[in-house]
Amino acid sequence: MTPRLQFGVTECQGRGRAAMPSCVESANAVCTNHLNKAHSGDEGLGLVEPGFPAGGPGAAAEEEVRRLCQGFMAPPVSGPQELWRRRRDMRGRMELLIMETQAEVCRALAALDRGAAFAVNTWERKEGGGGISCVLQDGHIFEKAGVNVSVVFGNLSAEAVQQMKSRKTLKDKDGKLPFCAMGVSSVIHPKNPHVPTVHFNYRYFEIEEADGTKQWWFGGGTDLTPTYLNKEDAVHFHKTLKEACDKHDPKLYPKYKKWCDDYFYIKHRGERRGIGGIFFDDLDSPSKEEVFQFVQSCAKAIVPCYIPIVKKHCHDPFTPEEKLWQQLRRGRYVEFNLVYDRGTKFGLATPGSRIESILMSLPLTARWEYMHTPPENSREAEILEVLRNPKDWVH
Amino acid sequence: MTPRLQFGVTECQGRGRAAMPSCVESANAVCTNHLNKAHSGDEGLGLVEPGFPAGGPGAAAEEEVRRLCQGFMAPPVSGPQELWRRRRDMRGRMELLIMETQAEVCRALAALDRGAAFAVNTWERKEGGGGISCVLQDGHIFEKAGVNVSVVFGNLSAEAVQQMKSRKTLKDKDGKLPFCAMGVSSVIHPKNPHVPTVHFNYRYFEIEEADGTKQWWFGGGTDLTPTYLNKEDAVHFHKTLKEACDKHDPKLYPKYKKWCDDYFYIKHRGERRGIGGIFFDDLDSPSKEEVFQFVQSCAKAIVPCYIPIVKKHCHDPFTPEEKLWQQLRRGRYVEFNLVYDRGTKFGLATPGSRIESILMSLPLTARWEYMHTPPENSREAEILEVLRNPKDWVH
Repeated sequence: MTPRLQFGVTECQGRGRAAMPSCVESANAVCTNHLNKAHSGDEGLGLVEPGFPAGGPGAAAEEEVRRLCQGFMAPPVSGPQELWRRRRDMRGRMELLIMETQAEVCRALAALDRGAAFAVNTWERKEGGGGISCVLQDGHIFEKAGVNVSVVFGNLSAEAVQQMKSRKTLKDKDGKLPFCAMGVSSVIHPKNPHVPTVHFNYRYFEIEEADGTKQWWFGGGTDLTPTYLNKEDAVHFHKTLKEACDKHDPKLYPKYKKWCDDYFYIKHRGERRGIGGIFFDDLDSPSKEEVFQFVQSCAKAIVPCYIPIVKKHCHDPFTPEEKLWQQLRRGRYVEFNLVYDRGTKFGLATPGSRIESILMSLPLTARWEYMHTPPENSREAEILEVLRNPKDWVH
Repeated sequence: MTPRLQFGVTECQGRGRAAMPSCVESANAVCTNHLNKAHSGDEGLGLVEPGFPAGGPGAAAEEEVRRLCQGFMAPPVSGPQELWRRRRDMRGRMELLIMETQAEVCRALAALDRGAAFAVNTWERKEGGGGISCVLQDGHIFEKAGVNVSVVFGNLSAEAVQQMKSRKTLKDKDGKLPFCAMGVSSVIHPKNPHVPTVHFNYRYFEIEEADGTKQWWFGGGTDLTPTYLNKEDAVHFHKTLKEACDKHDPKLYPKYKKWCDDYFYIKHRGERRGIGGIFFDDLDSPSKEEVFQFVQSCAKAIVPCYIPIVKKHCHDPFTPEEKLWQQLRRGRYVEFNLVYDRGTKFGLATPGSRIESILMSLPLTARWEYMHTPPENSREAEILEVLRNPKDWVH
């Protein structure tokens, strides 16, 4: 495998934005200057997969890779040549999709936040792979917005094998299971309590069993956490996701909407974290191609399902009491993420994982009041009712 | 068993302090008016255990119980008669100790906080037992101070039996194990970043095995979480705890100091939650009496180890930057409590437990900044160094 190229910063430390100028890039960060020549032996005129440009050999191919990477927040984890080489594999296509999704979302957020700068950090995992974390903190519109890409590979840890075997039949070789996992994940906490928090995550997993057969699956979802209920926004959000699902199969949205309500359940509170969206895991049928197309549709729906809601409310006036209620809801967000979220728990328990990227999902500020209960018929009670008894927003 | 008497509020709901006047009592709350006559068949001139007054039969005994209860924050969970009846059992003696500890700490805090009021809530557990939660929120000195007593009994859940069997050999009868667990626990978060947070918990556990034999053990500890390091305070805190331990055995403090450093470890951060103190669990030797005496000494050391530190610093001036650092450390406190703390995890996973009492340990406000690192040689870096590499404060 082509060695991974080194670009940009590999971890930078600093106190807040002021202290990390060297690793702050705008949402239009380009990697052109870092590009090496594309690997010359792998080009060809074969089938070009969706998302990849039709590139000829040599200089033309190099140009295509360069053009692709220019839109990314940082050079891809696998390196441009490797990405090009794998353009027909799912690994290459999915890495491209997550890189494009990261860039698209970051650009949309930065444009809304008066061109605010994202801190872009690339990091490497000793055992194989790495990631790109983009974080906008304390902006004009966003309190904290993180969009993270990771592409990791190696052998599954014994703990991970055990956890996976509870869900799948896997044939390991001397306990070793080579794997590759990649995904884009994001949590966006706005400042204004009338703008909801959004979370999305789309991921792909491959495991090579002892006999050489490969298991693969996709997972993901997008879900909304408003501080106050706005029915019109809830309908827009769910409708946009439903349309993305319906293009593939009308059975998908109802199934994944319910899965989402079930997954984001804060059991000890008897509440969901938010008003849901879609959530799915272990998706490996009807075919790799069809599932990828579905995941791609979901990823493309992120900006249209969320950004119009931000635009509509980001200048809404709000009271100190409304801000306080937002802070209490942020507290519940922290409770879900630290107590229940499988990804967070797995990340915290995995040696060598990058804690800052995992915990970028936590809000900038949160609050816990003893025995806080909103008055009956208040707008605070209205959202609680929906969190306790999820509703169908589209039919 | 004498039925449990109903006193005071059994859960009250309201928004913040303003909305819950009916359940707010001062730290000097008395239960005199609620007292029933003491059970007349159990008194006698037998051995009177430490902590209990020497009471004669009839009216004199009633007077003794009344006097005892006057100092409590609310009537004891077991009811005064039952407490009196059990005055020679460890269950009665320990319940008295935890009630006295709760009252002593609440009184000391209220006196410091210009006589601030504690919200006192009594609650019952359907399966047996109940508790008394005392919370002072948004006071002058304290951001959030909770002191909780609980006395619960019944049969251990299958999950709890499983968890316990990993530590102990237990002979159950058809999977059932009658138990009684009681304790006092507290977390006190002051407003001023120069006043540290303190946590303590002292508990007693009894299990009756299938053949009627009883297993019992004590657990507990007191630990300090400063935002900034003050060596003099650290020495005072540890020295006071050491003196309480040394009265019983000079080997105890070093052992439980290390246990505390090991227990309050935030693994994913590579930091301890604070500068430690003492922590122990499963303590069942040399004898029930000796262990109780030791636990009593620890409980009596809470006020002298902590209150002088509050008095010393509660009017210290502080900057907005210092407040910010405190908020970030509060975030780490939340991480430890939600991700690692055994008591919290057990409570959240136990059906019927009172979530508000469990999560009163969380601070009023907390903060998470992406990639925050204090400058070298700063006071923020100084405390981090101690959290990463625990020190010996007394020899």
